Amino acid sequence: MVKRRVVIIGGGAAGIDVLELLLRGQEGAEETEITLIKKETEGFFSSCGLPFALEGIYGIKDLVLFEPNFYIDKGVDFRTGTEVTSIDLENSYVRVDTGEEISYDYLVIATGSKPFIPLIEGTNLDGVFTLWGREDGERLKAAMDAKDTSNAVIIGGGIIGLQAAVAFSKNSIKTTVVEMFSYLLPAILDDDMASIVQKRLRKDVTFILGKPVVSAIKGEPRADSVIVGGEEISVDLVLLSAGMRPNVAISKKAGIEVGVSGGIVVDQSLRVKKGNSYLNNVYALGDCIEVTDAVTNRPRLSQLASTALIQARVVSNNLLGISSSYKPCLSPTVAVISGLQVGSVGVISETARRYRIKIKAGTAIKYTKARFFPGRKRIIAKLIFEEDTEKLIGAQLISGETVAERINELTLAIKAGITATDICMRERCFEPSLTMVEDVIVDAALKALKQG
Amino acid sequence: MVKRRVVIIGGGAAGIDVLELLLRGQEGAEETEITLIKKETEGFFSSCGLPFALEGIYGIKDLVLFEPNFYIDKGVDFRTGTEVTSIDLENSYVRVDTGEEISYDYLVIATGSKPFIPLIEGTNLDGVFTLWGREDGERLKAAMDAKDTSNAVIIGGGIIGLQAAVAFSKNSIKTTVVEMFSYLLPAILDDDMASIVQKRLRKDVTFILGKPVVSAIKGEPRADSVIVGGEEISVDLVLLSAGMRPNVAISKKAGIEVGVSGGIVVDQSLRVKKGNSYLNNVYALGDCIEVTDAVTNRPRLSQLASTALIQARVVSNNLLGISSSYKPCLSPTVAVISGLQVGSVGVISETARRYRIKIKAGTAIKYTKARFFPGRKRIIAKLIFEEDTEKLIGAQLISGETVAERINELTLAIKAGITATDICMRERCFEPSLTMVEDVIVDAALKALKQG
Repeated sequence: MVKRRVVIIGGGAAGIDVLELLLRGQEGAEETEITLIKKETEGFFSSCGLPFALEGIYGIKDLVLFEPNFYIDKGVDFRTGTEVTSIDLENSYVRVDTGEEISYDYLVIATGSKPFIPLIEGTNLDGVFTLWGREDGERLKAAMDAKDTSNAVIIGGGIIGLQAAVAFSKNSIKTTVVEMFSYLLPAILDDDMASIVQKRLRKDVTFILGKPVVSAIKGEPRADSVIVGGEEISVDLVLLSAGMRPNVAISKKAGIEVGVSGGIVVDQSLRVKKGNSYLNNVYALGDCIEVTDAVTNRPRLSQLASTALIQARVVSNNLLGISSSYKPCLSPTVAVISGLQVGSVGVISETARRYRIKIKAGTAIKYTKARFFPGRKRIIAKLIFEEDTEKLIGAQLISGETVAERINELTLAIKAGITATDICMRERCFEPSLTMVEDVIVDAALKALKQG
Repeated sequence: MVKRRVVIIGGGAAGIDVLELLLRGQEGAEETEITLIKKETEGFFSSCGLPFALEGIYGIKDLVLFEPNFYIDKGVDFRTGTEVTSIDLENSYVRVDTGEEISYDYLVIATGSKPFIPLIEGTNLDGVFTLWGREDGERLKAAMDAKDTSNAVIIGGGIIGLQAAVAFSKNSIKTTVVEMFSYLLPAILDDDMASIVQKRLRKDVTFILGKPVVSAIKGEPRADSVIVGGEEISVDLVLLSAGMRPNVAISKKAGIEVGVSGGIVVDQSLRVKKGNSYLNNVYALGDCIEVTDAVTNRPRLSQLASTALIQARVVSNNLLGISSSYKPCLSPTVAVISGLQVGSVGVISETARRYRIKIKAGTAIKYTKARFFPGRKRIIAKLIFEEDTEKLIGAQLISGETVAERINELTLAIKAGITATDICMRERCFEPSLTMVEDVIVDAALKALKQG
C-alpha cells in the first residue's frame, strides 16, 4: 500500500495538535506518513506559560513539553530548525530553506503568528523585546534579571502586557504600561470592568492610557527612553506587546487568499482558498487563519491555543476521513493577572456598538461562596444581552476564583441561545462552601432585565 | 384598595425565598399582606451550612442569617414558634396551634422535610440524633463535644452522613458509617466514583456497606450499642442520616394529593391538586413536593435549597401576575467531603438501568491545570450518554477544585441536548494556571464514544 504523505508547516499548538490527533486517530486506520516542519528547535513549547515563567513560578525550560525525539520515535519526520520558503500548490510540494523539496498529498498550514511591531523609530534597538516563544522568553528573562534593569515601558495593555507588568514589578522593575485605548484589555473587557483590573495593579504599575501611539524609542545602541505623547520616559527595557499578526507570507506568495482580518480564508472544513475555489488537499488552522464570529457573523482572528485545538480536531478528522466542520466561534478567554482571574466570551459592548447590535447589559457584584463561609472571594459579572431577544451574547467576569469554569458555562449558554430569563430560572448547584444559592450571574441577568 | 393576603407555611429556604422574592417584586406593584408561619424560632437558618459548623469552621449561631425582626421590620406578619395544625381549603384559612384561624387569598405550602427515622428498635434513645435545623445541630454538637463521646455510628452513607463522619473524626471520635447499598453516596454516584470517596475517608472512618439495615439500637436510657448484620458495635452516639421525607401531613389531611415519591403533586405553575383539579390559589414548593425528572420523566423528590430557589421564583412570579412555569429538573448536586468536591447531575447508571435507558459511559482522570503548573489537582469525570443519540444525560465529578462550576456547565449541557461529539468540538477557555487545553470532560466523552 502506498502511504499518503501529510506535511504540516508549523510546530506551535496548532501544528502539534494536528500531529498528535493524527497519530492517535491512525491506530488501525490507513497509514499516513507525517512530516512536520518548524523553525524552532524544541519539540513542543508552551508559549501560553511564558508570563508565569517570567514571574518565576517555574523555569522557561519547564515549558518545553516535548523534545523532537518524542515525535521522531513515533515515526514522524519531525524537522526542527527548518523554514519553509515556498509552497507549490500546482505540484504539491513545499520547499525548505536547504533547497529541499518535500512533496505532499495533504498540506496543513499552521504557520501561527508573530508579535506586531509598531511602525515607530527604534523598535530594533537593544533592550527592545517581544514575547513569543522560547527565545524571546529567555532574552527577556535575562534582561529582567540584569542588575542595571530598573525601568521598563510596556507598549500594549492587553493580557501579555499586563502579565509581563506583574512579572516586572515582582522583579522590582518600575514599569509603565502604555495603551492606545482609554482602558486596559480593550479586546476582551468593557471600560468599567477594565477599571477593576487597573485598580488592582495601580500600586505596582504606572499606566498611560488613551494617548496617541508611542512616537519613538530612543537610544544607541540600547534603548534608554520612550517618547509617549511628547513626554520622555527613561527605560532600560521596552516590551512590545501590541498584539499578534498572522504569519501568512508564504501562503500569500503561493496565491492563497487572505481575508480582511489578515488571516488565511478557509471554508468550514478549514480548507484554504485559491482563486474561486477551496483546495481539496490544503488545510490551514490556528493563529494564521480567519474565523467567523458566532455573534457578529463577521470575519476575525481567534489566536488562542484552545481555538487551535478544536480546529485541529476538524482538520485531523477530515484527514482521517471523518467529515467535520468548524463552527463560528466565541473565543472564550481567561487570564490570570496579579491573582485576578479575568474572563470574557462573546461580544463586548464596543463590538456590539461597532456592528450596531442593540444590547441590554447588567453588572453585579457578589461572592463566590455563601456569605457565612470563610475564604469567599468577590466576583464581578457583566452580562450582555441582545436587546430584542434578550439572548446572552457576551459575558465578562472578574474574581479570585471560578472564572474559567464559569466562562465555559457561559460559552455554552451563548451557543444554546439562553435568555436573561432562562439564566434566572436555570438550575445551579448549591453548597455553601463553594457557591451562593443565588449566583452573581443571576443578579447580573436580573439587572439587565430591569433595564428593559 | 383591599390588600390581598398571602400565607406561607414554612420558613425554611423555600418559604423564605418566596417571601423575599415577593418583597422584592412588590416595589410599585399591588400591595400584598404576607403572613409567614414557622415552627422554628429563627428568622432564617441555613441548614445546608450545618455539617461545616460541626467541623468547627464556624459556629452554629453563624448560620442564623436573619432574625425574625428583619422580616417584621419589612411589614411581614412573621410568626415563629407557631405550628399550622390544619388547612381549610374550602374556606381559605389555616388554623395554628393557638387555635387562631388565619385566612388567605393565596396559600403557599413550604412545609419542607424531616429526617427519615428507620423502623428499628431504639431510635428514641438518648444519644441518638438527626441533623436538620438549629436544634438538631446544637444537640449533636454538644454530644460530640462531651468528654465521654469516643465512638459513633452513622446510619446512612449519603452526603450528610459522610460530612458528619468527617466532623466526628476531626473531633477524635471513632466513627463507623453503615450504608445499605454496597457503595457510598448511592443517590448521586456510581460505584466506581463512590470508591474514590471511600478511599479518601478510609483512614478516618470505618465502613459497613451492603449489609441489611441496622436491626436495633440498644441501651437504656442512653444508646450504647448498634446491631448491624448480627454484629454489635459499641457507641456513645448514633446519627440517623438515612434521607429526608417530605412533610405532608397537614396537606394530606386537607385532601391535597400526594404522589408516589411521597411529595405533594403540583402542576407546572406549582399549584396543588385536590380531587380532579389544581387549585388556583394554593401553591407548594421545596422539599415537600414531587417534581419530574428531566431525563427519566418520572416523578421524584428534589430536596435541595437550589431547587427551592427556582421554584420560589415560579411561585412568586405567579403570585405577582407574571405567568411562570417550573420545568422538569436535573437537580445538580455538589458536596464537599473531606476536601473532595463531589458533584453529580442528571442520571446515574443505576437510575438508567432502572428505567431501561441504554447508556454509553466514559470516565477520565486528568488535572485541573496545565501539567507544568504547580498546585494542579486531580480531577475524575464520568459522563453518561444515551446510547442511541449520544446525548449527555448524566455527569459525576470528583476533584479538589472546580467541581461546582463544572456541574453547572454540565447541567446546561444536558438541558441543551449536547452530544458526546459536541463536547469534543466545543470551545473551552485555556489558561495554563487554571485549565488544561484538552479538558477531562473531553477525554471522558472520547472514551464513551470509543465504547460505541
